[in-house]
Amino acid sequence: MTEGTKRVLAPATVLYPVPAVLVTCGDSSGEKNAITLAWVGTASSEPPCIAIGVRPTRYSYGLIQRYGDFVVNLPRASQTGILEYCGSVSGRTEDKFAKLGLTPERSTNVRAPLVAEFPVNIECKVKTRISLGSHDLFIGEVLAVHADSDILTDGEIDPAKMDPVAYFCGSYFRLAGKVSEKR
Amino acid sequence: MTEGTKRVLAPATVLYPVPAVLVTCGDSSGEKNAITLAWVGTASSEPPCIAIGVRPTRYSYGLIQRYGDFVVNLPRASQTGILEYCGSVSGRTEDKFAKLGLTPERSTNVRAPLVAEFPVNIECKVKTRISLGSHDLFIGEVLAVHADSDILTDGEIDPAKMDPVAYFCGSYFRLAGKVSEKR
Repeated sequence: MTEGTKRVLAPATVLYPVPAVLVTCGDSSGEKNAITLAWVGTASSEPPCIAIGVRPTRYSYGLIQRYGDFVVNLPRASQTGILEYCGSVSGRTEDKFAKLGLTPERSTNVRAPLVAEFPVNIECKVKTRISLGSHDLFIGEVLAVHADSDILTDGEIDPAKMDPVAYFCGSYFRLAGKVSEKR
Repeated sequence: MTEGTKRVLAPATVLYPVPAVLVTCGDSSGEKNAITLAWVGTASSEPPCIAIGVRPTRYSYGLIQRYGDFVVNLPRASQTGILEYCGSVSGRTEDKFAKLGLTPERSTNVRAPLVAEFPVNIECKVKTRISLGSHDLFIGEVLAVHADSDILTDGEIDPAKMDPVAYFCGSYFRLAGKVSEKR
């Protein structure tokens, strides 16, 4: 029993660990941007849908609204510095692709570019948007998935090969050993 | 450059790692249930909102609809077995609280119970629901947060003390070392 040892905290965003991803948007051959987001999650299995929370003040927000799609790029732990950078500067004042040497590659099903250097790229088309306050939640249907062949085992993403990161209260963490086997 | 080494996978739910949580619903002094969910994420910072994807066929779906609220209980790694169990049996046929010796404690702001044994409990009131296909997405506003005092450092949740888990492609993982310091 833990009764009696609980503390009440202010209502806040304490759901952790969450993913940390690089979302790309715009047009692969025109205006585009990359933004780091952690307020993202899977929303549905069939069709597969991803929900991303974006502040309306962000440059990327207007691009997602205008083009109606986005790409979720999952990082390797070695790419955490890219996430930190893309979460700290605005695409209004800087071409983050050029600055970081990232390749905005043409996607197969959406206009937003995918980032060639990231091991997983999930192409999403916006189905709906909900205004919640500080953030609007875009719900995107997954239309295509690309993955580096070196992170796959039997055609599935293998966390041991990918070396992904989780985000917890402002810091990035690698994953450690499995607590349980896949069921 | 990774160009040329990408493989195209079928559209699927490949956004990982994601949280794995125990969501409680119903009435702390009446009908209630606990369901394991991984299709959850933070949706907004102000007000803090959490989105959870629930299949309409689930017993918990009806309870969340009827009472209009839920509690997100975050586990310690040692509680992964509880998540596995609560994700594999239905509350229609079993009282999971009794079976597992979990204490459904009264919440402060919602009717759904919180699980006393879990280190973090996030009380949420449903703001809206979106039907997506296999899952409906409930968006809940966070009204209260409870945390075991032994997982806090300077009033904030400390992952080193909490020992949380992340969910990746069907398996649970502990977090390893920090890739970067909090900014």
